[in-house]
This record gives sequence, C-alpha cells and structure tokens, in this order.
Amino acid sequence: MANIIVQKYGGTSVGSPDRIRNVAGRIKRYHEEGNHVVVVVSAMGHTTDELVDLADKITKNPPKREMDMLLSTGEQVSIALLAMALWDLGVPAKSFTGSQIKMITDGNFSNAKIQGVDRSRIDAALNEGNVVIVAGFQGIDQNENITTLGRGGSDTSAVALAAVLGAKECEIYTDVDGVYTADPRVVPQASKHSQITYEEMLELASLGAGVLHSRSVELGMNYDVVIHVRSSFNNNPGTLVVNEDKIMEKLKVSGVTAKNDQARITIADVPDKPGLAAVLFGDLSSKDILVDVIVQSSPYNGRNTISFTVPKKDLVQALPILESFSNSQGAKKPEINEEISIVSAVGIGMKSHVGVAAQMFKALAEKEINIEMISTSEIKISCVIPRIHAETAVNKIHETFGLSKNG
Amino acid sequence: MANIIVQKYGGTSVGSPDRIRNVAGRIKRYHEEGNHVVVVVSAMGHTTDELVDLADKITKNPPKREMDMLLSTGEQVSIALLAMALWDLGVPAKSFTGSQIKMITDGNFSNAKIQGVDRSRIDAALNEGNVVIVAGFQGIDQNENITTLGRGGSDTSAVALAAVLGAKECEIYTDVDGVYTADPRVVPQASKHSQITYEEMLELASLGAGVLHSRSVELGMNYDVVIHVRSSFNNNPGTLVVNEDKIMEKLKVSGVTAKNDQARITIADVPDKPGLAAVLFGDLSSKDILVDVIVQSSPYNGRNTISFTVPKKDLVQALPILESFSNSQGAKKPEINEEISIVSAVGIGMKSHVGVAAQMFKALAEKEINIEMISTSEIKISCVIPRIHAETAVNKIHETFGLSKNG
Repeated sequence: MANIIVQKYGGTSVGSPDRIRNVAGRIKRYHEEGNHVVVVVSAMGHTTDELVDLADKITKNPPKREMDMLLSTGEQVSIALLAMALWDLGVPAKSFTGSQIKMITDGNFSNAKIQGVDRSRIDAALNEGNVVIVAGFQGIDQNENITTLGRGGSDTSAVALAAVLGAKECEIYTDVDGVYTADPRVVPQASKHSQITYEEMLELASLGAGVLHSRSVELGMNYDVVIHVRSSFNNNPGTLVVNEDKIMEKLKVSGVTAKNDQARITIADVPDKPGLAAVLFGDLSSKDILVDVIVQSSPYNGRNTISFTVPKKDLVQALPILESFSNSQGAKKPEINEEISIVSAVGIGMKSHVGVAAQMFKALAEKEINIEMISTSEIKISCVIPRIHAETAVNKIHETFGLSKNG
Repeated sequence: MANIIVQKYGGTSVGSPDRIRNVAGRIKRYHEEGNHVVVVVSAMGHTTDELVDLADKITKNPPKREMDMLLSTGEQVSIALLAMALWDLGVPAKSFTGSQIKMITDGNFSNAKIQGVDRSRIDAALNEGNVVIVAGFQGIDQNENITTLGRGGSDTSAVALAAVLGAKECEIYTDVDGVYTADPRVVPQASKHSQITYEEMLELASLGAGVLHSRSVELGMNYDVVIHVRSSFNNNPGTLVVNEDKIMEKLKVSGVTAKNDQARITIADVPDKPGLAAVLFGDLSSKDILVDVIVQSSPYNGRNTISFTVPKKDLVQALPILESFSNSQGAKKPEINEEISIVSAVGIGMKSHVGVAAQMFKALAEKEINIEMISTSEIKISCVIPRIHAETAVNKIHETFGLSKNG
C-alpha cells in the first residue's frame, strides 16, 4: 500500500493563481514518487478578512451559523483552483468540502471541535489515482450545518486527517521556514529549531508566536502525529514538532517571546474573602474576555491586591465589569496600564533544570528592567515589564540561555 | 397551514450590501403577513464572472467538476449575507446550500438537471418560524458531488422549489419589471405584458430576450407553477407566465426580438444525397456549436444550397468542420456573413390566426428590407435580414401587430 502524505498549505502559500500553480508543482513531485497525497488548503490570502468585512457591511452582529456558511466559501474556492492547477499539470485531482468527507464537528459555530472524519471517500479517490484536496477550517455538525474551526483551523483539519489516515507526518507549509527561538524581526540572532516538543509549541503558540493553531498541536500530541512546519517557498527542511521522548537533549529554554497586545489591570484593597476572584474572572469570561497572567498578593490587613492582564481590544468591554466589582466590594478603583509587555521563556528542559527563573530575573536585572508581575508554569516563565524594554529583554534572555546563533 | 411563497432574487438585486438589505426589507413584509417564505438567491453582481476569470488564470481547460465546486461558492456567499440581513431586521432566517436541502441532480457538471428535492429540512426550518434561504444554481449528484445548473439556473432552482412545496406562484425578482413586447431600448413604444404563456416565454427566452432560464419555464409549464417576473426595485406587478388556457384573448404576436450575435453560413453545390445534413450538423453539435435557423433549398440539378446560422463566437471552431465537409462533398467553399440579424415574431395566437407570416413579410417589404432566410414554427416566425436594418425591422413589425403603446 502506498505511503500517505498529508500536506497543508496556508493562505499565503495559495495567495495568487501563480502561487497556486507553484504549490501544484510541489504536490506533483510527491504524487509522482508514488505517494498517496492528501492536501488541505486555507482560503487565498486575505479572502477571510474580505468576507468578514462584507458581513460587517450587512450587520454588526452576524449570527454565527451564517458567518460559518459565509467564511467556509473561502476554502472551497482554494480547493477548486488547486485541483484545476493539478489537472493542468496532468495530475488527476479531486477536491472535497468538509461536508463531502464528513468532517463531523460539534455544533459550536465559529469555534467547532472535530469529532470524526469518514475516510472512505478519501480512500476511494486516492485509489483512483487522485491527489485528494480537502477544504481546511470547515466541517459539518450532526445536522449538516456548516461549521468552522476558528482562525488557523486548517492546521487542525490537516492533523486530524493525518491521524485518521495513519500518516506518519503532517507537513504544514507556511510563509516561515520553521519555528524559531524568537521572532527574527526582534532578535536577529534567532535560530531555527530542527525539533521541538508539542508542549513547547503549545506554549509558544499561545504566546503569540502563532505558527500553528493550538488545537492542531494538541491533536498531534494525542495521536502521535509528527507535525513538520516548513516553507512553501523553498525546499529546506523545517521544524519537526514531536513527542518529548523523541528529543535527546532537552533545552532549558527553547523559545523567548514578547506579547505587546495586553493591558495590565490592578485592583487594590479587595477584601480577603473566598470566592471573590471566581466572581471577577467568571464575569470577564462570560464576555469572552481572555485573562492571561494573574497575580494576587498575599493578604495584608484582610485586603488583597489583584493584578491581571487582558487584551487591550477588550478593555472597553472589561471596564464596566471591573468598576462594578470594585464598587460592590469596596475596593480601590481599577488601575490600567497599557504600556506593558509580557516576556516569556519556554522550555521543556525547565522541568528538570532548577534555577531557570532566577537566571531570567538576573538577566533582566542586568539590563535594569523592572519586573512588574511574574507568573510561572511547568515549562514557562512570564514576566510583565514596561513595554519600552520589551526588545532589549527578549534579546538579553535569548542570549542568556545560549540560543543565539554562534552564541 | 401558512401560505408558501417562493421568491427568487437575481444577481443585480443582491449586488451590494445595501441591495441585500433592501431585499431583506421586502422579504420581512411577506414574512410579517404570516406567509412561509422561501427565497432563492443568485451570486452577487459579477461574482460568477470573477470566479471564471480566476479559474482562467489557473488553466484554460478547467475540469467541469472543479468549476462547479468553484462557482457554487458565489451563491453560498449571497445566502449567508441575506440571512444575516434578515436577522439584523429581527427576522429569523436560515440559509441552505443545494447539498443541505438535497437538491439532487444528474451528474452533468455545469449543466445539470434537477431530479428531486427533499422538502423535509425546508419544512422544519419554516415551522420553526424561519425565512428559508436557498442557494440557487446548485445541487448535488447521487455521490454528493456539487453540480451547477448552467447560467441563469437559479430561476430553475426557484421554480423547482415552488413545484415541490406546492406554492401557487414563484416570484422571480430581477432588474426589469416584466416581460415586454420588445426590448424597450430598441423599441421605445414597447409595452409590458400582464400575462404571457409558457410557450411564448420559451420562444422569447431562446431568442435572447433572456429574462428567464428556459428550463425554469419548462418546469413551470410541467408542474403548473405560475411564474411572476417582476422588479426588485419597485412594487409594481410584473408579468405572469401562465398556461395557455388561463389567457382569454390570445395575441397573434406577443413579442418581437432581434438577435445580433449570429453569423450566416451558406454552402452551395451540396450533392442531394440522404444523410448529408445529418453529418454536417452532427459534426457541429459534437463541438457544442448551437445551430439556429436552418434553410435548405429545393434541389436543382441534383445539388442543394444549405444555409444556417451559428453564434459568431463559435466561428473559429466551426470553420475547419465546414471546410472539410465542403471538400469531401465537392461542394462550394462555405460563405460567411457576420452582418446579419435574426428578427422574430412570437405569439401563441398564430396557431389559430392565418396570414401572420404574410403580414410580417409585407411589413419588411414596406421598409424595403430584403429577407435572406425564413424559418417558421408553430408560434414563431424568424427572418434573417441585414444587420443594419434590425432596429427598423423590429419597430415596424411591433407597430404592424398593434403592440405599441397607445397604438
């Protein structure tokens, strides 16, 4: 039986007719080597944004079911065009929507979770000699309503297919050629990983080094699918995202990131009563406001100070909630600081190396950068610092942990 | 049980977000009167042309299955936006693709025929209080491949739904406010019909007065669905397309048209042997070249002259076929005249009125217009004349049969 290869091409890779033809050329090579090739594609370039703008001209509050109906057309255009480009090169190809391959999801429109895929139609098309092209980002619920998996969801479609089809590897083609130790635009010395663990990738993705959709990494981890992040513009090997046990030497720190889209909120003089934090953060999450770093001081005179970060774009929605909380609890008025950055170091090796946090704090101290909040997890240390020092901090931490090229 | 109304809005009617909101306002009124409203929409404005252009940049020879996959996205965008616009006006609405309502067709991509529709999902959505919005122009074959019904196919989707749902009338909203006795741009005195028969509409449609998709008229005729052609830009009643027996006084001539996109081909000295015409026209039809008027002279000295018209755009493809036919039969070289017009008069009343053809020839003679070919059917008379006289001819015939306003 032929080897099954699953490849995913992102919106930039299929952003124009010429690029689609290039992608077809690449797929042709794999097909001619005798592989069974299954390709997942995103919408072309800025199509999804354009569709969102179109909806915005109709209503400020589109029903999610109809939004998914609208957005899923972007990928459908891409699959048809890519199939045409392959036929034009003499390669038989068949495109399929999420509905046609029974990519079944829950009914959570705009952020649906995959529940299963029926491989029979894919197998039939492959056995006829076709390249199979699948629309990413989309599925159907039990009632055949069209659902979408959230921004970046095509990665998840691809990894799910790789898992169902038993492919050893899922290639994710994008406009960067792998996962770096830091954003090369900020840290010129950043270098590319040849391997990284799922856990590290998850932390890096959620920190905004957004190469992969988080759920695709979780799926890869759960089904042991190696994810190969690489560029569609060259033939260089990229970064393999793998299980921890496949990596011999675990780096203490494998990536350093800065997140600048957050604001810090501080509420002082909160009574030290059980359940108050749950009330506050429950109210925020009911408005879909994602709270990131949370720090609560030890109580003093029966009063606490709670600090946390929220996306700046959600401040307008968050403020009334915060003020009514402060008023009802007799706490101080919330203070807001938008000039912050969350600088983080991520590494699977932290689990077994002590002193990583101390090393990071020392690095920041050497640059006289004041740390305003600290939050740590098993494989991540995050510090909130003044926004103005973000670049200096990232470069210094990157250097401190020996990540710089020739460093 | 509530009254079911089926409405179809064409591409111009939903050509922009503002127009979509206007259409939603119109639908809302019908919904608030307590009707069950089912709406079929086309792709917005020039969307289909833009998608065809996109495919053309990928390949000059796109596989039809993938072309249908591509083009069907246009209507999917429209249904989602229209549903959003209705919700924005407080009207519950649900959009459905051809696949979701099981609009089953044959597998003839790009020109599929409807075989059936499953009304259960539509009924369920209507009974929940929704306006149901269906993507026109598209269906699926037995294997769930997406098919399209050919240009203008949304009319056919709408009439098919009206037939299946037992609606008394199918409203086709377009950018003209009905069916006229002639093209008002050519004949300023043209007037709007309040009623016209299916047969007349079929002849007028195939003559290029392309208000309705021909198959929609055939379906209406077969299932006795009254088709109401009207404008989406005002509230005037339009033209009802009905059964012959519903029309009391049948006009001898109900419409006059001119078709200027054809070229005349004449081949002289064709041997008078049985089967030769079948060979020639069989070869042309195998290349999808649609031959319109055909005239063959009585044989003289064992030789015939065959004249016929084909679309100018197909001349390049037709020529080699014609030349090889002439060579093999020892006939004269084909002569081509692109400066012609086919002027036709259509009327159900011709069946029972004699002398209509003579009246038409006399009208042309009065204007000293030479008739180059004549072809007649039960309810249509067509004359091929020099292109330069087309406007004069149409106006004169229109006047002759008493169709002009105040005339």
